[in-house]
Amino acid sequence: MHISSLDTPALLVDLDKTEANLDRAASYAKRHGLCLRPHTKTHKSPLIAGMQLDRGATGLTVAKVGEAEVMALEGVPDLLLAYPVWGDAKWSRLVEVAKRLPVTVALDNAEAATGLSRHAQRAGITLGILVEADLGMRRCGLPPGDGLVRLAQAVSGMGGLRLNGLMFYPGHINLAAEAGEQQLDTLRSELRAVLESFRANGLPTEVVSGGSTPTLFQSHTIEGMTEIRPGTYAFNDRTQVASRACTWQDCAVTVLVTVVSTPRPDTAVIDGGSKTFTSDPLRPGGDGGFGRVVEMPSARFHKMSEEHGQLDLREHAGPPPRIGQRLRIIPNHVCVTVNMHETAYGLRGDAIERSWPVAGRGKLQ
Amino acid sequence: MHISSLDTPALLVDLDKTEANLDRAASYAKRHGLCLRPHTKTHKSPLIAGMQLDRGATGLTVAKVGEAEVMALEGVPDLLLAYPVWGDAKWSRLVEVAKRLPVTVALDNAEAATGLSRHAQRAGITLGILVEADLGMRRCGLPPGDGLVRLAQAVSGMGGLRLNGLMFYPGHINLAAEAGEQQLDTLRSELRAVLESFRANGLPTEVVSGGSTPTLFQSHTIEGMTEIRPGTYAFNDRTQVASRACTWQDCAVTVLVTVVSTPRPDTAVIDGGSKTFTSDPLRPGGDGGFGRVVEMPSARFHKMSEEHGQLDLREHAGPPPRIGQRLRIIPNHVCVTVNMHETAYGLRGDAIERSWPVAGRGKLQ
Repeated sequence: MHISSLDTPALLVDLDKTEANLDRAASYAKRHGLCLRPHTKTHKSPLIAGMQLDRGATGLTVAKVGEAEVMALEGVPDLLLAYPVWGDAKWSRLVEVAKRLPVTVALDNAEAATGLSRHAQRAGITLGILVEADLGMRRCGLPPGDGLVRLAQAVSGMGGLRLNGLMFYPGHINLAAEAGEQQLDTLRSELRAVLESFRANGLPTEVVSGGSTPTLFQSHTIEGMTEIRPGTYAFNDRTQVASRACTWQDCAVTVLVTVVSTPRPDTAVIDGGSKTFTSDPLRPGGDGGFGRVVEMPSARFHKMSEEHGQLDLREHAGPPPRIGQRLRIIPNHVCVTVNMHETAYGLRGDAIERSWPVAGRGKLQ
Repeated sequence: MHISSLDTPALLVDLDKTEANLDRAASYAKRHGLCLRPHTKTHKSPLIAGMQLDRGATGLTVAKVGEAEVMALEGVPDLLLAYPVWGDAKWSRLVEVAKRLPVTVALDNAEAATGLSRHAQRAGITLGILVEADLGMRRCGLPPGDGLVRLAQAVSGMGGLRLNGLMFYPGHINLAAEAGEQQLDTLRSELRAVLESFRANGLPTEVVSGGSTPTLFQSHTIEGMTEIRPGTYAFNDRTQVASRACTWQDCAVTVLVTVVSTPRPDTAVIDGGSKTFTSDPLRPGGDGGFGRVVEMPSARFHKMSEEHGQLDLREHAGPPPRIGQRLRIIPNHVCVTVNMHETAYGLRGDAIERSWPVAGRGKLQ
């Protein structure tokens, strides 16, 4: 089937580029003795997860129990729920998943650990636990220090749980910015201090899970880290290019759209807006744009409403887009864009090799 | 069933507030002799559409053929597809809908009209057409002038189509801004000119469809307009409050979330981020916030990632949120937030009266 047979908007996944992205990260992780545990939030698809595992990924990462349920398939070695999951409803669902394959939870509070312990003991299973340290991201996680050690000690004493080490998320580091190297240095020294405090207190450091796409290929320079959890690297996006984590050639996902209106000489309107792409800005910094038009990169995707995208053509030198013309757009943030689509279409060149449901889409709970 | 039985994040619809919002607009429209044709993009649900029709709505508005298919139910008088729909796949699906109930399409180009004409004739049906005028929004639509008249004349001559009048979208007008009244005046005079040119050329003006939520209750001051198409008014949101189109009391939709981490004294992390709310900014202007926390309005929802929302508690005076506590958030933009959820829960007070699927969710094509 040719790409022209698809209606728009449609989510396209270039399989050659995806495979190259997966190969690059897998061989990097292997070369440096790092465990690669991809975050499935980007693709939300067991098919792509299988491609990651085939290349040596040691397990998968998820953020929601609903994603864990989607990914808990035959052949998946184990799952990390990288989220301080809360509440009896989710704990009991998670325990059901953990009866099928090993599950580890990352958390930053004793309340969540207590609930997980209760549910694990009742089911007669053991959940792995990583305590989450905040090494600069300022989201979840406890800062290096006594509180983090005390949480790890508390978890160590809880039935049904096995403390395996710690997790952090270096999502604040932007190596394209002037401060990037300094941020990475600070993280290295904070991690060193945390690991020393764990060892001094007899706490395990067998799993030290970090890593995200922007710093992926610097992972070997972070001493003590054993595991990386990049997600976006599978597909890449406009933000990763801006962060110098990849090039345009590495962007595997585009959204196929149609020009539906050319109401003014300087404007073309496409049939995708915030309900197709989301309105995530370019990060870091933002430039007001919502995506890169592959066929006319100097057209600026500068406005969107729910179902309309507006291209500013003033810098575009070639022939103006005509009504009915199809364009492909690299989104600002591929993880949230994929989540807007029910189906992904995998391409080799312009041929659709296969399609698959975005099975983890909208799994909010 | 009590609200406490729901897991989070969950989309809550206060039915009393929704009904009050629907009543207010319905009685306003009736009082001023305006046809009310609600845009279903906000709720994407036949249930709420039915409540609108029960209150006298003359028909429904949709943006996508997939939404038309969801809304083409028994008892719906007719549909307006307020979008310059393009392509054989969509035209043929739309014609199937039009075999069941009258369908009108708004468009701004002869190419789309030609395609619709071909499909309508082949099926032996007639599609209504409104030509779209741009009265200041600068999105789709032709500016007042000869081009608009020529398009209307061209449509009038096409088989299978019946030109009923024109459509515009006044979404650029913000009556809370200093320029708001001036923008509305400009729109009034531009509309007058367009209507004169239509009449001078013997073109129909029986349907003049405008209206959006921010200017909803000014509709009677726009001479010549026969129909209004507000969507957001059913639920309202933080942006509508900022635009002075409603008060907090009129905001019928909240997202129920759980505090999952309190890693620093000034921060609480909730279990919803951009995959629950989307990252739409407050409009107009933006304040960097992503929603209003009903229970603690001085807590600032200032950061989000995909599954994390961060509340800045520095201005919050009451007791700090504790892990496991539930909060309700009024989103910046309810239309895109509803679209992220599979199910809506209708409340009376804290009791769940019923739930329903967000049937039009993710209908991108």
